[in-house]
Amino acid sequence: MVKLAVDLMGSDNGPEAIAAGIKEFLKKHSDVEIYACGSEEALSLLKDEKHIHSFVTSQVVPMESGAMQAMRMKDSSMMKVFNLFAEENVQAGVSAGSTGGFLSLATLKLKLIPGVERAALTSPFPTLNGSPLVVLDIGASNENNPQQLYQFAKMGRIYSQTVFNVKEPNTYLLSNGVEEGKGSPVGKEAYKLLKEHNFPGFKGNIEAREALKGDADVLVSEGYPGNIFLKSSEGVAKMMSALIKKAFHKNIFTMIGYLFSAGGFKDMKKSMDYKSYGGAILLGVNGVVVKAHGNSDAYSFSCALEVAYKMTSHDIVNKIKEGFQNEL
Amino acid sequence: MVKLAVDLMGSDNGPEAIAAGIKEFLKKHSDVEIYACGSEEALSLLKDEKHIHSFVTSQVVPMESGAMQAMRMKDSSMMKVFNLFAEENVQAGVSAGSTGGFLSLATLKLKLIPGVERAALTSPFPTLNGSPLVVLDIGASNENNPQQLYQFAKMGRIYSQTVFNVKEPNTYLLSNGVEEGKGSPVGKEAYKLLKEHNFPGFKGNIEAREALKGDADVLVSEGYPGNIFLKSSEGVAKMMSALIKKAFHKNIFTMIGYLFSAGGFKDMKKSMDYKSYGGAILLGVNGVVVKAHGNSDAYSFSCALEVAYKMTSHDIVNKIKEGFQNEL
Repeated sequence: MVKLAVDLMGSDNGPEAIAAGIKEFLKKHSDVEIYACGSEEALSLLKDEKHIHSFVTSQVVPMESGAMQAMRMKDSSMMKVFNLFAEENVQAGVSAGSTGGFLSLATLKLKLIPGVERAALTSPFPTLNGSPLVVLDIGASNENNPQQLYQFAKMGRIYSQTVFNVKEPNTYLLSNGVEEGKGSPVGKEAYKLLKEHNFPGFKGNIEAREALKGDADVLVSEGYPGNIFLKSSEGVAKMMSALIKKAFHKNIFTMIGYLFSAGGFKDMKKSMDYKSYGGAILLGVNGVVVKAHGNSDAYSFSCALEVAYKMTSHDIVNKIKEGFQNEL
Repeated sequence: MVKLAVDLMGSDNGPEAIAAGIKEFLKKHSDVEIYACGSEEALSLLKDEKHIHSFVTSQVVPMESGAMQAMRMKDSSMMKVFNLFAEENVQAGVSAGSTGGFLSLATLKLKLIPGVERAALTSPFPTLNGSPLVVLDIGASNENNPQQLYQFAKMGRIYSQTVFNVKEPNTYLLSNGVEEGKGSPVGKEAYKLLKEHNFPGFKGNIEAREALKGDADVLVSEGYPGNIFLKSSEGVAKMMSALIKKAFHKNIFTMIGYLFSAGGFKDMKKSMDYKSYGGAILLGVNGVVVKAHGNSDAYSFSCALEVAYKMTSHDIVNKIKEGFQNEL
C-alpha cells in the first residue's frame, strides 16, 4: 500500500477541487491509502470514498504566509500532513496551499537527507521533441552556493534516471551563454566543480531557449533565476495560448478553420500540458513532497497525486540517500 | 539628416543580409545617411545606393569574442562604427555581430552618460494586450547593485515615455513573488530605494508571467535573471510556433483548417513579432547603440535600423542626460 497524506485546505479553488482530484485519482489506483487533513466540512466531501483516513484540523496556513507563520500554526492541515510521516508512516505529502509554508514545513519536519545541503524544488518541463526536461532549483532557495548546484545536478540526474528512465542524462547549467566563462558568479564556480569531478553526462552551459529543444535532460540553476525561467516560460505559454484562441475567434472563416484543425491543436495542447506534471517536487528531504499549483483544478491535483504516487513507487528518496552516502 | 553607422560584418547571415536590410530601410527614409563599415566586398553590395558613405576595414570581430579581443582589433568594422561617432558625428551605431564585443566597445568608446553607473541592454517585449513592455537589463551586466537597478528604472521610464508615449509608465521589479520581501538580495534593496524615493509609477514586484499580460510598462531586473527572462520567453515562443506549424501539418483536414484560419494567425504572428523590435538597445551611453540579432535577416536588420532611427529622432540620449543631471 502506498500512503499519501493530502492537505485539503489553503488552495485557491477550495477543498472542492482538491477532493474532486482525490476522487479522480482513486478511480485509477486501488493500492493507495489517502490520509486527508482538513476541516470537518472539507473532509465530509470525501465521506463516500474508500481508502480515506480523515484527520480533522482547525487551522489553515494562508497562501502568502512565510516559514514562521506556518511553524506557529500547530493545528494546521499542512502541519498535520508532515506530522503523519512520523505518526502513520505516510510516504508522501501533497498540498496546493502556500508554497513558502509548505517548503519550510517540509524541510523542518522531514529534515534534509544526510549529505544534502539544500533541498531543490524540481519540475519537468515540456520540450519541443517531447522528452521532459528536469529543471531544478525553480525557487526553493533565493541564493545558492556552487556546492549546492553540484548537488542539484546529482539529484536531477537521479530523478531523470529513476522517473523518466533516461540512462545517461545530459546535464547542463542554465546560463546566459554556452562558453565556460559565462554565467552568474555562482554558476561559474559550479561549472568548475562539475568539470573537475567529471560529473557524468555534464555537457556545460546552455541558454534557456536551447534547453527547451529537448536535448537536455537535466537543467541546473540557482533558485532565483530558475524561478524566473519557470515563470517566464509559463507566461509566454499562457500568452500564446490566448493568442491562438483569439486567432480562431477572429471571424467565421477562422472558426471554420478551427473545426478542421482542432485535431492538430489537441496534440499541441497535450505537448504543452504543464498541468499534467502536477506541480513541483521538493527533492532532498526524507520523504516525497509534491507542491501542486495553488490554482489546481481537479485534473491537475489528480496529476499531482500521480506524481507523488510515481515518486513513491520509484523509491526516489532512498535512491537519493544512496547517491549521497559518499558525501558524508 | 540622421547619421547612422552600420557594421556590415560579423553576423550569422553575412553582409548580404545586412546590406539587404539597409536597402529595405533606405526605401522608407530619405533623411538618412548610412556610414557603412566593412570589407571592400561587403561594401560593393551597396554600390548602387545613394546616401551611403563607405569605410573599408580589414578585420572582423568574431561572434564569440570578448571585450579584450574586440579592443585589440583596431581595424575592425565594429571599432570603426564607434570611431565614427567622433570622426563623422554619427548619432547611432548598429551591428549584428558579437554582443560581447559590441557592448564593450560601445561603453569604452562612447563612455557612460555622466551619473549613469552601468549601461543597460534594453528591449521591448510583446504582451497579451499589445502594449510593449520595456525590459532592462537583459544581459549587459552579470552582477548589479541596488543603485544600478534604481537607475535602470529611471532609464526605462524615460524610454517608455519617449519612444512609446506612455505618460506615466507603470514600473515593476522582476521578482519571484509580489510581496515586498520577495526577490533576490539586490532586488530587495532596490525595492527599498525605489520606495524611499517615491519613484514615480513604481508599483512593486511582479512575476514574469504577470508582466507579460500588458499592465506593466517597464520591467527592471539584474542582467543575469533579465537575460534568463529574455531567453526563456524566446524559447517558449519558438517552441509554440513550431507546435502550431506541426498542428496545421498533421493531416489534410488540419491543412484545410489553416487555409480558413490563416487570417487570424497572421494577426498572432504580428503580435508576437520579436523581429520587428529589431534587437536590443544599450541605454546609458553617449550615443544610440542598437544590437541586432546575430541571425538577423534583411527584414529584422531593417527593423534594427528603424529602432536606431526612432531613438535618434526622439533624442533619447539627451533625455537620459537631462534625467541624470541631478545624480551628479
